[in-house]
Amino acid sequence: MFMRATLALFALAIVLCGVTVARARQSAPAELRYESGSRLVLPDNYREWAWVSSGLGMVYEGEAQRPGRPPVFTNVFVNPSSHRAFLETGRWPDRTVFILEFRASQTAGSINTAGHYQGALLSVEAEVKDARFPDGWAFYNFGGGASMQTTTAPIEDPARCVECHTKHTAVERTFVQFYPTLFEAARKHGTLKPGF
Amino acid sequence: MFMRATLALFALAIVLCGVTVARARQSAPAELRYESGSRLVLPDNYREWAWVSSGLGMVYEGEAQRPGRPPVFTNVFVNPSSHRAFLETGRWPDRTVFILEFRASQTAGSINTAGHYQGALLSVEAEVKDARFPDGWAFYNFGGGASMQTTTAPIEDPARCVECHTKHTAVERTFVQFYPTLFEAARKHGTLKPGF
Repeated sequence: MFMRATLALFALAIVLCGVTVARARQSAPAELRYESGSRLVLPDNYREWAWVSSGLGMVYEGEAQRPGRPPVFTNVFVNPSSHRAFLETGRWPDRTVFILEFRASQTAGSINTAGHYQGALLSVEAEVKDARFPDGWAFYNFGGGASMQTTTAPIEDPARCVECHTKHTAVERTFVQFYPTLFEAARKHGTLKPGF
Repeated sequence: MFMRATLALFALAIVLCGVTVARARQSAPAELRYESGSRLVLPDNYREWAWVSSGLGMVYEGEAQRPGRPPVFTNVFVNPSSHRAFLETGRWPDRTVFILEFRASQTAGSINTAGHYQGALLSVEAEVKDARFPDGWAFYNFGGGASMQTTTAPIEDPARCVECHTKHTAVERTFVQFYPTLFEAARKHGTLKPGF
């Protein structure tokens, strides 16, 4: 009787240990989070995600230039586990989140006399790859300033987003051609679209 | 006798469990690593560290501008645990590493018609806060291109680095005034130098 109880306790210890180790290994908190269906939650810590690149004053074909206005910085972050997966495979796993941050640029300040450094946050957008969407991808706009949202529904009519993110992107629906280390990974894994 | 053996086995299971959990929790590998004394090892994955900001074509007081040459992007990364500590305290803990990456800028490519996006890696520098150095800080230059180093000794005569990083920096020896989210954290924690 005593022996059985001890063995049962021993077995319990093993099981609890397994659970604790599994929990400890889940170092990354959930990276993609929705509320009320498909409303994307803007992660508090997206700036601690993997940063893939920044551009300044980028203008795409068909877009108007904005002469006389200071150029805007665009910073792109990806959830860490998807970033790692892309480096290893050249493909985006399901539940990948891109955060696109727009920031003001400044020139004169402190000891800086020319060129540009980053200033105030202007607005935030996101793109998500998730099989829950009919198209496999969704686009979000959290806005900026006082009206910035912390959760938001997918853009209702994403036709223009989808068209541009289909025709002009180097890998799947993403502008990997503008992210030098990812571009290199995609080339290595042979996942670039023809023409790149 | 049997009971004692079982209890001993049980105790062993608990100890092993503790060790395994502790290991699993060590999710972060060592962030600051030296070789042969003070030679800094350039971390393979510094681009997965916390990115704090990027500038384009920044020119400091007393530096010559480079007209006619394409501007260079400067990307700054900090080891994740120090970055988190700074957000919480406005101060840099001992063993903080800054990596400064220089990248070429490109304008015409894909659907981009104006502004700048990032291209080839040009060179990498680093700054380390570590009580092992008489001054508390050290500066490193890994170079670039074919002669780029993966480990390097501290810059031998850092007087110019130290002077500029003392006179013109917003927090300790770091240009936090150019990293908008850190600038905000330092302001909140009251750790900005007078004048900022």
